[in-house]
Amino acid sequence: MTLTAAPLRLSTTSATFDAEFKARLHWSADADAAIEKVVADVLADVRQRGDAAVLEYTRRFDGLGPASMQDLELTQADFKEAFDSLPVAQRDALQAAAARVRSYHEAQKKASGESWSYRDADGTLLGQKVTPLDRVGIYVPGGKAAYPSSLLMNAIPAHVAGVGEIIMVVPTPARGSVATGGSGAAASSEGERNVLVLAAAFVAGVTRAFTIGGAQAVAALAYGTETIPAVDKITGPGNAYVAAAKRRVFGTVGIDMIAGPSEILVLADGSTPPDWVAMDLFSQAEHDELAQSILLCPDAAYIDAVQASIDKLLPQMPRARIITASLNGRGALIQTRDMEEACEISNRIAPEHLEVSSHEPHRWEPLLKHAGAIFLGAFTSESLGDYCAGPNHVLPTSGTARFSSPLGVYDFQKRSSLIEVSAQGARVLGPIAAELAYGEGLQAHARAAEMRLEKP
Amino acid sequence: MTLTAAPLRLSTTSATFDAEFKARLHWSADADAAIEKVVADVLADVRQRGDAAVLEYTRRFDGLGPASMQDLELTQADFKEAFDSLPVAQRDALQAAAARVRSYHEAQKKASGESWSYRDADGTLLGQKVTPLDRVGIYVPGGKAAYPSSLLMNAIPAHVAGVGEIIMVVPTPARGSVATGGSGAAASSEGERNVLVLAAAFVAGVTRAFTIGGAQAVAALAYGTETIPAVDKITGPGNAYVAAAKRRVFGTVGIDMIAGPSEILVLADGSTPPDWVAMDLFSQAEHDELAQSILLCPDAAYIDAVQASIDKLLPQMPRARIITASLNGRGALIQTRDMEEACEISNRIAPEHLEVSSHEPHRWEPLLKHAGAIFLGAFTSESLGDYCAGPNHVLPTSGTARFSSPLGVYDFQKRSSLIEVSAQGARVLGPIAAELAYGEGLQAHARAAEMRLEKP
Repeated sequence: MTLTAAPLRLSTTSATFDAEFKARLHWSADADAAIEKVVADVLADVRQRGDAAVLEYTRRFDGLGPASMQDLELTQADFKEAFDSLPVAQRDALQAAAARVRSYHEAQKKASGESWSYRDADGTLLGQKVTPLDRVGIYVPGGKAAYPSSLLMNAIPAHVAGVGEIIMVVPTPARGSVATGGSGAAASSEGERNVLVLAAAFVAGVTRAFTIGGAQAVAALAYGTETIPAVDKITGPGNAYVAAAKRRVFGTVGIDMIAGPSEILVLADGSTPPDWVAMDLFSQAEHDELAQSILLCPDAAYIDAVQASIDKLLPQMPRARIITASLNGRGALIQTRDMEEACEISNRIAPEHLEVSSHEPHRWEPLLKHAGAIFLGAFTSESLGDYCAGPNHVLPTSGTARFSSPLGVYDFQKRSSLIEVSAQGARVLGPIAAELAYGEGLQAHARAAEMRLEKP
Repeated sequence: MTLTAAPLRLSTTSATFDAEFKARLHWSADADAAIEKVVADVLADVRQRGDAAVLEYTRRFDGLGPASMQDLELTQADFKEAFDSLPVAQRDALQAAAARVRSYHEAQKKASGESWSYRDADGTLLGQKVTPLDRVGIYVPGGKAAYPSSLLMNAIPAHVAGVGEIIMVVPTPARGSVATGGSGAAASSEGERNVLVLAAAFVAGVTRAFTIGGAQAVAALAYGTETIPAVDKITGPGNAYVAAAKRRVFGTVGIDMIAGPSEILVLADGSTPPDWVAMDLFSQAEHDELAQSILLCPDAAYIDAVQASIDKLLPQMPRARIITASLNGRGALIQTRDMEEACEISNRIAPEHLEVSSHEPHRWEPLLKHAGAIFLGAFTSESLGDYCAGPNHVLPTSGTARFSSPLGVYDFQKRSSLIEVSAQGARVLGPIAAELAYGEGLQAHARAAEMRLEKP
């Protein structure tokens, strides 16, 4: 059967544009009551029974037969062995990517993650001390869909921040287990390991790792068990159970964003080879049927050319079926009045990935307010950013770039205000604080300030 | 009746210390099913019916009788009138506090909130663009318990970040309404307004303001109504309904932390007048019966002296009843082996407010890893920081300082990665990205990178 991928064609001059555009963007991640119930039970059980509960759920959901927690721990030797088993080209690529990601995040730390302070004329010191988290947990999805690049993108900023320990969890379900949708027949102590993920753990540097997943892994990291140390924050993507578990443990530990489907928006002025743009739209669409690829362009003939490239290139793609479903279900090719309007619409979308495929990208960049990552110029394919340009590929989705940021060193740091009021400063600040405290009816606050004015 | 405040006396050398200490720290904010149900319904209704639902809930819960949304909007003239009505000393104190808070947050923006970028040797540009949120909502609790200082602490960092519009909501329940626990008899269009809050709105600069509260106000800000504009983030404290509503709209908009009871930890070496320390413990305890005040000190005689100061000063305090309940229920005076151990215990607590009441605070500060704000030296009472030293008084509670930070300019900004790969850079990065993409089975990613190596 021949697949036909035809993203919805829209024009901003149409009277129905706003409604059609809104409908196409719509995506909602409503909580699933059945998932919530399972997750609440698993969390409570692991909190209560620790290792015993983790072992039980791992047997049940991943079809493994571990005798003890020791069977579920990966060692540094496992990581090295995986790394050494890779072809040289893959080893080199992993290390080159890691080096670039590290150097970008070191620049990020220097630019926005260092402690600072200053002294007032009266000697009062004010500032912020920036310190790393002690211990973080990284969730890595299991099986063949695991992305080693995501492990680099989570672990390296944590290292650069100075995090002391990085605990990785990665399910290794047996073939035929509940987790892989099979019959649950197997019961070995070791499931399917992803060699690239283990090799990435070697390259990125992971302190300890356990072959567990799902809500039970999130619970183990949040509350700690006899074997698994409790962490301060959990990052990394996972399925609906993992996402629900992360939401629920938030407050006990920190969490990163809960990601929606991936998205790309290409702002094109018609100067980029249409094949390049078509392939960039594919590279988002191939992730997932719910992924969203949108082209904004003022030139109708260019949009036709991109559609022709889509038709030509689609048959070559191994993941053509997913690409087709994504483009037909959620894709859009939108003709705008001009590039300025395209920028404005982009700001309404606040896309995860934003390609400015223009011969003058710096003309448009200042107009772009909301996006996870902005890829400037025709040579900057999103996929370069996904793997090795340096910036993080964990980005805000579903319009949350309006208020949130790429994963970064700052996610593995926290700040403490520093205040040292001098005796002289206390005489300036005391009366102000006392006046406001009395106004709020908080007399002990006022007295504490006033006492510093009196002879001790 | 004479009140007696006797915080639990503990010693780290006791065999039972760990258990007693853990029990005293325990605090749990379990979700209340009844509250969750009400909040879910209110959110859905406001999302669906907009203004009509907001009006209905405001009539029902706040005992007001607004004819339309217009009756619920405060004007700039209202703010100015409130400000002008204050005694000069209060006006001056508000403005002095605002000026100091502003200048601290400007330094914060400069130190950690500016855009940055660099170019590789091959001309590839990498960096991050830092931009303000477009529009934020600030929740201010209503009635007599409202704190104008909190409005300053929320609005000023937003302004410094460059946020375009600040929308304030502040319930003004009628006396005798459901919100004030009364009979619901009144039905005027105007409830009890807190003049200091309105004056603070004048000083801090608020774009628009509505006299609504509860889950309905959170819903209106998150989803928007015909009258109330949808915001990108909601900050500010509220009751259990407000907290539950904020958790539920997270993802649609950003939210700040969900605060637990306030806490102070005083690390004392015995050099500060005991009255000062006692009053600092009171100033936390007077907030709330669940507030927690803890003293850590290696000197038993000094701890006795602080207890004596507590006994002496308590009868003078208008809020003695709350202070007593807080100190008896949750307070602790802990004798440690030495200051080093005190620092270590402080790190286990990760307190919201940490006073280093020592004659050599800079000796201990480097040992302190986790705290919302660190107050150095005897003159730095927490209350100076609460009102006017400059740093934000919205701080992580309940041990969340292990992974989170004071409210700051960064909470009203977000970041977009910037990547511009040069033609030459694409030739370096393309093969690396393609190798890793093929390894992950994402062929369109690989092809998009490879196409940039081919002649267009």
